[in-house]
Amino acid sequence: MELLAGPSAARGTERLPLLDALGRALAVDVHAPLSLPPFANSQMDGFAVNSAEIPDDGAELWVADPVPAGTAPDALKPGFAIPIMTGAMIPVGADAVIPIERAVPDSFPKPNTDAVVRLPHTTAGSYVRPAGSDIAEGALALHAGTCLGPAQVGLMAALGLTAVEVRKPLRVLLVTTGDEVVEPGRELTDGKIYDSNGTLLEAAMRQAGLEVMRSGISDDDPDALLALLRRHAGSGDQSGSVDLIVTTGGVSKGAYEVVRQAMAGHHVEFVPVAMQPGGPQGIGRFMGVPFLGFPGNPVSCLVSFEMFLRPALSAVHGTPAPRPVHRAPLAEAVTSPSGKHQVRRGTLLPDGSVRMEGGAGSHLVHALARANALVQLPVDVTELAAGAEVEVWML
Amino acid sequence: MELLAGPSAARGTERLPLLDALGRALAVDVHAPLSLPPFANSQMDGFAVNSAEIPDDGAELWVADPVPAGTAPDALKPGFAIPIMTGAMIPVGADAVIPIERAVPDSFPKPNTDAVVRLPHTTAGSYVRPAGSDIAEGALALHAGTCLGPAQVGLMAALGLTAVEVRKPLRVLLVTTGDEVVEPGRELTDGKIYDSNGTLLEAAMRQAGLEVMRSGISDDDPDALLALLRRHAGSGDQSGSVDLIVTTGGVSKGAYEVVRQAMAGHHVEFVPVAMQPGGPQGIGRFMGVPFLGFPGNPVSCLVSFEMFLRPALSAVHGTPAPRPVHRAPLAEAVTSPSGKHQVRRGTLLPDGSVRMEGGAGSHLVHALARANALVQLPVDVTELAAGAEVEVWML
Repeated sequence: MELLAGPSAARGTERLPLLDALGRALAVDVHAPLSLPPFANSQMDGFAVNSAEIPDDGAELWVADPVPAGTAPDALKPGFAIPIMTGAMIPVGADAVIPIERAVPDSFPKPNTDAVVRLPHTTAGSYVRPAGSDIAEGALALHAGTCLGPAQVGLMAALGLTAVEVRKPLRVLLVTTGDEVVEPGRELTDGKIYDSNGTLLEAAMRQAGLEVMRSGISDDDPDALLALLRRHAGSGDQSGSVDLIVTTGGVSKGAYEVVRQAMAGHHVEFVPVAMQPGGPQGIGRFMGVPFLGFPGNPVSCLVSFEMFLRPALSAVHGTPAPRPVHRAPLAEAVTSPSGKHQVRRGTLLPDGSVRMEGGAGSHLVHALARANALVQLPVDVTELAAGAEVEVWML
Repeated sequence: MELLAGPSAARGTERLPLLDALGRALAVDVHAPLSLPPFANSQMDGFAVNSAEIPDDGAELWVADPVPAGTAPDALKPGFAIPIMTGAMIPVGADAVIPIERAVPDSFPKPNTDAVVRLPHTTAGSYVRPAGSDIAEGALALHAGTCLGPAQVGLMAALGLTAVEVRKPLRVLLVTTGDEVVEPGRELTDGKIYDSNGTLLEAAMRQAGLEVMRSGISDDDPDALLALLRRHAGSGDQSGSVDLIVTTGGVSKGAYEVVRQAMAGHHVEFVPVAMQPGGPQGIGRFMGVPFLGFPGNPVSCLVSFEMFLRPALSAVHGTPAPRPVHRAPLAEAVTSPSGKHQVRRGTLLPDGSVRMEGGAGSHLVHALARANALVQLPVDVTELAAGAEVEVWML
């Protein structure tokens, strides 16, 4: 997380119209420029009254002219009740609203007729929404770092705001590696596979609010990879540089591990992570730019993104919104390797239980595409019976 | 839902590059043009062997040249083991992989040295991912109507696809009504409030994949509202017309209900819904265009959208993806009116329980902006203790 704090601060902020700010993180605290509701208003269609004028056994009152929506009403005169619609301003002199269903008769008279209405006793404040009962003028409406969704931009509109200062998106360079990897659409010869990591991770990163630059596939030549990374990391020009480099593949202990070889001599560590899928992960800086080396299997890539990068972005940059985490019973028994935190793919079923999609294999991208959740099996778990509760992260 | 089936079919489809199709619904079934994995490959770094050549007490084998990634390996010769990396193609003649950790010595010899390795017994198929074990060529990969997220576009990339046929977004006309409603940014006089419904709903609709047209605020003149709706509904030209009209406000039983008045004589019903917030909802067709009349309070608008329109879009059009629904314990006791399904706003806490945000009032847009979930209290519930399980829809 500390790795991303610098770039997040350096990337800066911009002012956007509310709807363009959807999915961005607030750069500043927003205080309410007015109270909500701005004025005491009626919670129901009914009669605005002075509660002190109606004894326990009710009273008959003259019906005044109704309060039209969107205007400041005349003051309530003694002996009168004022027809009022939901949301309309409570007249001066009134302190309660009596719903129309409790009036006799239970409908509004035509305007400009000398009508009376019988109303039951009520207490001050009944069916009145006080000014500022949702938020008071000057109070903190949204704090810096809030990820803006429909409700948050809706609140700012209710406060009369039209634009907002948000953090600029972070820019990531995404490099997929491997001699065996071919761009989708090209011919697939023996021993080759199509690059799904690039599309999968770019999609996940875009949805998480990152600006993604793609380098194409880098083969297993460390010098070529280094040259590519230097071009992007070393521009020095803030607007053109990247805030983060993510590679896929070439991080394990095999004989042809291009990322591991290329990073030798740079400030990047390759740490074994006791997680399945996952395995070794590269982490550090390349020429000062935060660097993450994900494994080469597509499921490992997505799980690495969801477990490490996405939560760090939420915490440091405010976007994306954190995944909701909850507990759900297993629809079936599962096993998990001893000493490893297993992250399985699952589907939350309509009955609230969670079913596994595919086995533990990190190459099962079709099974991943059927899943809507990650299922967390802690490091000390080796087997769980059907019905056991597990932590579930919704995708 | 039947209301939306016609427009969804009529809107048609388009072919998009994978990443541009993110968030769209597949228009057709996608079958796998190749198997995944395309060829049997190794699950580990280790030695590819013919398991029949290694008796129960193990065997010493000559070490052949390694299988480079991304090539078709030479066939395994009798008496040999072939160094192989994770993901590399299993050579003809080999039927199992023995992980490097189980070999003696447990590291790969330099190429072109006459080395031997001692390997333990194994069984055919060990640490081999068979061709087609994730999906077989010709099998259904993704069904029509699937909402495309990172995993789904990642799968299509793994299958070598570069573009996909998706449903075009539906187009909605969003009209906020009310003499009391003012555009954010303008001056707020007594009795007026800022229009938050427009921003709130446009944001929610955009996130749900709708193309939103805004008319601005319509005042409480039914004739003006009718003229506005006719302009948009009646264009006749498919590309310019809207698939759905949504209005806010003007649907209750009060004296100034502009939507209700304007729809008199059209095929729109105003039905009381036993839901809080919510109340009356308009539903029908205006000049053949599906029409929904939402209530005027912002929280009611969002709840109406989430409870009625969004699930219908998911079911009929395939986008957005349905909200995950699960059960969580209440962090506090709640009460709910008898005879009404109450939809409260809540926050799913890190401990998995759900806390209420604000009271039941449908004007509490600041409380809504703190929430990340809708909490469903069924029609027959009047009170629930802390710890009771409720259905939670994550926002």
